[in-house]
Amino acid sequence: MVFNVCHKTWHRIRFVVNYHRREECKLGIVNRSMQAAGVLAGMFSIFSPSKDSLDGIEIEKFMTEPVSNMEKLEKHRTNMQARMELLIMKIQADFCRALEAEEQDGSKFRIDRWLRKEGGGGVSCILEDGQVFEKAGVNISVVHGSLPTEAIKQMRARGKKLSEGGPLPFFATGISAVIHPRNPYVPTIHFNYRYFEVTNTDGSVEWWFGGGTDLTPYYLNESDAVHFHKELKTACDVNNKSYYPKFKKWCDDYFFIPHRGERRGIGGIFFDDLDEPNQEEAFQFANSCAEAVIPSYIPLVQKHKNDGYGYSERQWQLLRRGRYVEFNLVYDRGTKFGLLTPGARIESILMSLPLTAKWQYMHKPEPGSEEDKLMSVLREPKDWLKIEA
Amino acid sequence: MVFNVCHKTWHRIRFVVNYHRREECKLGIVNRSMQAAGVLAGMFSIFSPSKDSLDGIEIEKFMTEPVSNMEKLEKHRTNMQARMELLIMKIQADFCRALEAEEQDGSKFRIDRWLRKEGGGGVSCILEDGQVFEKAGVNISVVHGSLPTEAIKQMRARGKKLSEGGPLPFFATGISAVIHPRNPYVPTIHFNYRYFEVTNTDGSVEWWFGGGTDLTPYYLNESDAVHFHKELKTACDVNNKSYYPKFKKWCDDYFFIPHRGERRGIGGIFFDDLDEPNQEEAFQFANSCAEAVIPSYIPLVQKHKNDGYGYSERQWQLLRRGRYVEFNLVYDRGTKFGLLTPGARIESILMSLPLTAKWQYMHKPEPGSEEDKLMSVLREPKDWLKIEA
Repeated sequence: MVFNVCHKTWHRIRFVVNYHRREECKLGIVNRSMQAAGVLAGMFSIFSPSKDSLDGIEIEKFMTEPVSNMEKLEKHRTNMQARMELLIMKIQADFCRALEAEEQDGSKFRIDRWLRKEGGGGVSCILEDGQVFEKAGVNISVVHGSLPTEAIKQMRARGKKLSEGGPLPFFATGISAVIHPRNPYVPTIHFNYRYFEVTNTDGSVEWWFGGGTDLTPYYLNESDAVHFHKELKTACDVNNKSYYPKFKKWCDDYFFIPHRGERRGIGGIFFDDLDEPNQEEAFQFANSCAEAVIPSYIPLVQKHKNDGYGYSERQWQLLRRGRYVEFNLVYDRGTKFGLLTPGARIESILMSLPLTAKWQYMHKPEPGSEEDKLMSVLREPKDWLKIEA
Repeated sequence: MVFNVCHKTWHRIRFVVNYHRREECKLGIVNRSMQAAGVLAGMFSIFSPSKDSLDGIEIEKFMTEPVSNMEKLEKHRTNMQARMELLIMKIQADFCRALEAEEQDGSKFRIDRWLRKEGGGGVSCILEDGQVFEKAGVNISVVHGSLPTEAIKQMRARGKKLSEGGPLPFFATGISAVIHPRNPYVPTIHFNYRYFEVTNTDGSVEWWFGGGTDLTPYYLNESDAVHFHKELKTACDVNNKSYYPKFKKWCDDYFFIPHRGERRGIGGIFFDDLDEPNQEEAFQFANSCAEAVIPSYIPLVQKHKNDGYGYSERQWQLLRRGRYVEFNLVYDRGTKFGLLTPGARIESILMSLPLTAKWQYMHKPEPGSEEDKLMSVLREPKDWLKIEA
């Protein structure tokens, strides 16, 4: 709790950052060389930003200091790496504050800034055991280093024009959030927006964006589903009218749990390898999708956070959370990649898992029940906005 | 609950088997052709065994009818397929009855016999929400069919002398159990013993045994750990004095969670591809390990099932169960293989998952606490029986 009250002003930021480093050190989570690098970086960083210094982004509202040095970010503000880092810091802060505003008991996010020995780091914001949110995680990460030959091979197979052989320098930055509310009538949301760069041996750079937002309700409310998809469609349409139908289908396909024959939730949008029509427009697309998270989700929280529910609704929510765990641990590419990456910050990767989940043998909702209605749309995805009609 | 009271006498077995088939049918879990095959098999099977008809195995004590036709089992009783099926049916019944005897509220196992369209089937016994056992699953399966080329390739790479190319007939049978008790002072146990056969194009048969038993305590009790390992060592030593140290190490290596840098529990034994010194002795080894489950585990249940505990012990148990889920879904070969197998009975595979599990961000036991003591042996496996000394 002490973490959450001390992030309000710039003056305290250096203290807070160092405090968290000490905390991680005490907890033994980061290895010694990472701690050393982090503490040194904290001691020598110059971090006194001015309001509105970066294209309208109010950096003094960020949850904490960005991963990259602020001077460097200022200097390279037209560079896509810097713009994306500033965008995700802004989205993280806006979303965390919007969630905190829904808490009635003053629950605040705990903020952990961490540095990675191999290059870069991240900011993990977690709110656990709140009155409205049982577990909410909003992470950003900015990492760079050397891409192993095997990863390059896989990217080439996927169509990336990368130099053959040896390791290549890479840069990756993104925001990832999973919000598990307490009330079973408030859906879980997940979103992730990321930017990737690989530098070829001739100095040319391959870049692309990826991401998406998807909703996992425990009880189906059709008007909520339509609202959610409509907001995503609006964000897509500004950029390209073909994006929503294409990325909606990709989302339905991606969040499929083959061994259950059902989807994790009622979808949303999902895309990867987006490198067209040009870098600026692709960035603007990621930006408008990320900006759509709050209007698509917060109204649903406000509408349902005080809905009445009982033991059986809670049990159903916990069983569905078991399915969430199954998808994330067995199929989610990001999670699998993270678990296999040496030196990855496991606690940030697995913050997507719910606080509590259940597995009951042969549980099956009563035919015609509200639980059964949800299952039917998880088995057969719906065209919520009647695009096909 | 209706499932559990009606399995006591042979007379009702046909009713029970058909009852469960109807139940599965209603639940829509088995596809239509499987149901049809199952019901027909039930209608035409002749199942009137006599006491002690099969080498001292009291088949009238089985939880239900074996998967294979009893007449066939009687006829081929010297055949390893039949002997192994009868052994696992016996072990299943003995263990389920031993667990039921620990329940004070009369909780009994639910028994589901299921048939597989592609050949074979299984018997899943599950006790959920008992007073002593929160979730206990004891499954047997007997499956046969055609081994795909890809699987053959992997087995050849592992050293199996199998014909190249095309699918080959296979037979696999085994017992698998996971017991999650309610009291955090009673450890979770898992065991699995299996027999595999592949028939080459020239008619020669490659066969092997695999299996193991391992313990996952929530609080470390050194004398329990020693008792458990001693029982396993005794079972191993009867067959080969080199087995316990070798298979103990294999177990420590297998149940490792790389992304956590810890083991799932305090180990036991684990082995695979065992095809020496000969089929009879390898079978006797699997037999003595399987027979060691009750003496290694039930005394620990009896000793601790009434130990006092509170909220914090329960929370710790749930967090450790989260790690159990992580191991099973991310690393366990059997689970992964099952989830990827079309037509596999998912509910039987995932019965290994606990009723409830938790994930708390950055949870770390207090240094020197009982929880911390457990963690140190999960990070550094111990030589419980001082074999090396």
